Amino acid sequence: MEKKTYTIYDIAEATNVSPATVSRVLNGNYPVSKKTKEKVMAKIQEYNFQPNSIARSLSKKETKMIGLILPDITNPFFSSFCMELEKYAQKKGYTIFLCNSMNNSEMESVYLKVLSERQVEGIIMMGGRINKSLTDTEEAAEVLEVMKKIPVLMVNGEMAGVDCYQVRSDERLGMKMIMEHLVERGHKNIGLLGGKQGITSTDIKVEGFKQLLLENGLVYYPEWHIYSGFSVESGQKAMDKLLENKELPSAIICMNDMVASGALVACNHQQIDPKKFALVGYDDSFVADILTPSLTSINHDYEKLGTVALDLIINAKNEQEALDVTKKVTIDPFLTKRNSTAR
Amino acid sequence: MEKKTYTIYDIAEATNVSPATVSRVLNGNYPVSKKTKEKVMAKIQEYNFQPNSIARSLSKKETKMIGLILPDITNPFFSSFCMELEKYAQKKGYTIFLCNSMNNSEMESVYLKVLSERQVEGIIMMGGRINKSLTDTEEAAEVLEVMKKIPVLMVNGEMAGVDCYQVRSDERLGMKMIMEHLVERGHKNIGLLGGKQGITSTDIKVEGFKQLLLENGLVYYPEWHIYSGFSVESGQKAMDKLLENKELPSAIICMNDMVASGALVACNHQQIDPKKFALVGYDDSFVADILTPSLTSINHDYEKLGTVALDLIINAKNEQEALDVTKKVTIDPFLTKRNSTAR
Repeated sequence: MEKKTYTIYDIAEATNVSPATVSRVLNGNYPVSKKTKEKVMAKIQEYNFQPNSIARSLSKKETKMIGLILPDITNPFFSSFCMELEKYAQKKGYTIFLCNSMNNSEMESVYLKVLSERQVEGIIMMGGRINKSLTDTEEAAEVLEVMKKIPVLMVNGEMAGVDCYQVRSDERLGMKMIMEHLVERGHKNIGLLGGKQGITSTDIKVEGFKQLLLENGLVYYPEWHIYSGFSVESGQKAMDKLLENKELPSAIICMNDMVASGALVACNHQQIDPKKFALVGYDDSFVADILTPSLTSINHDYEKLGTVALDLIINAKNEQEALDVTKKVTIDPFLTKRNSTAR
Repeated sequence: MEKKTYTIYDIAEATNVSPATVSRVLNGNYPVSKKTKEKVMAKIQEYNFQPNSIARSLSKKETKMIGLILPDITNPFFSSFCMELEKYAQKKGYTIFLCNSMNNSEMESVYLKVLSERQVEGIIMMGGRINKSLTDTEEAAEVLEVMKKIPVLMVNGEMAGVDCYQVRSDERLGMKMIMEHLVERGHKNIGLLGGKQGITSTDIKVEGFKQLLLENGLVYYPEWHIYSGFSVESGQKAMDKLLENKELPSAIICMNDMVASGALVACNHQQIDPKKFALVGYDDSFVADILTPSLTSINHDYEKLGTVALDLIINAKNEQEALDVTKKVTIDPFLTKRNSTAR
């Protein structure tokens, strides 16, 4: 015979009290009359009832679950962060729900709503709405609404008017490390491929790129700076366009490793030796290792990003709006040198 | 002016009834007094209220949520499947919760439990316990327990004694397509790198490999068959080991694109021209396109895998144990030819 699993509702019905009362008896967090308590406890014993984790979590508000909303799980930047976050979450006894919005704002809204209704203890957001240089006010309002119930942390992004937890790898510093490396290698003509205007991770790098050229006495040539996107295909298109120029840079910085991969594909298709250029990526994902030549790239320090993000969000619920709480942490990236910039 | 989106709670407040009553009016599943019904309906019209999916799901027991448990989100095979599943889920109005078990059986158990408690409508499993050639009985018992409440679908895997929904890309056929391609290219000496014994996706390919060599009158050389794992690093190690042989094969089949990437890395490190070998991967992820040379690989037909899996799992709940229901679907993969096997 199939064993019936009793719920808090069965106990409530059998004892003619509300489910909330059963929960109070179980958790002892609110006063309940002695008579009711005895009646409920007797039924719990009779039914051999094991309070399930939802009943427990509903009353204790501890689900040990964190939601992570990101725009594209196939991009190794996001999956690498994920992996480090999950490794640390496992150590800390937390479960992560991954929500892949496919860079769709409506999907982000659905996930924000569903996660907050499912009582996660915190929501970590990456990409999408938090990476717009101009915050969308409706999108911000939704996040603020969620924050009334649950702490929110943004990784490498922010929204105007939303004072939430933030962890950020210093992309301006990353660009500086690249530029110093290229200048030290003797490059004076440097191009920049990929990304999208209006996306903060792009805008920060572009701004840094221009300023650092200036600081190093180098010239910014607009024809060597091509926006295209973040995918392999977009990198290929950008490189094809760059190669239409008569004069070419000696070094090319790409917005991420996927764009750099696309640049290499373009070279291979056009039978141009990619070693003609010093090539630098960004994100230092596994992709950087498998390309030919292997790709010099900036590493976000995923492990640190993941651990700091989780620590901030799980401690958030314990912080009673203390004024001295660090809500924003910046992490230094590092440069991994490989063959693509070897002399 | 910003458009306000009304919720079931706004209607409840404005009509001075409980949200549950509004829900009853909307769903007609419980009797509500005529007066209350008219009052609520009037307000619903006035507010031009669209009942949201959660309010509906709470009453209909439809959450429109599916859980997906997979072992490694950084492996493009899993993230590619994910992406196709999510694209189709979005069209169908379903939300996917991704659960990355990190190939850890305990984490799989946690996710199985948490997902079933959170009332998802179905659970899709990939990798981990469902890919063991010898099913672990305790692990199977857990899945059977979950199946009492929620339908379970396994992608490219199965468990002895667990009669659940299954979608499988035909890996035996994939191996046949590779072998035919290599034989047609004139290869007689073929090696096999990567994978792990006891993991079905490996065992199926190894068995097919040996049998197909035989059918083609070719010899199986154990020293050219090296188990190593599924990562880039494991591919590099396997290739290093293969290269220790005096006699080398002219063609090398790899368990997946990551292993093939590692084989190329090993060649580059040892300054061996990778064009010396015909190289074939498996999974046809984005990685196959960015390698030099670009990699011939078997594609699982991710789009078909994703759509068939979702259709099966969302229809599962409507099927009253009908005897004629197709629970297991096999999908034909296809070969994508690239430079790594060009003449």
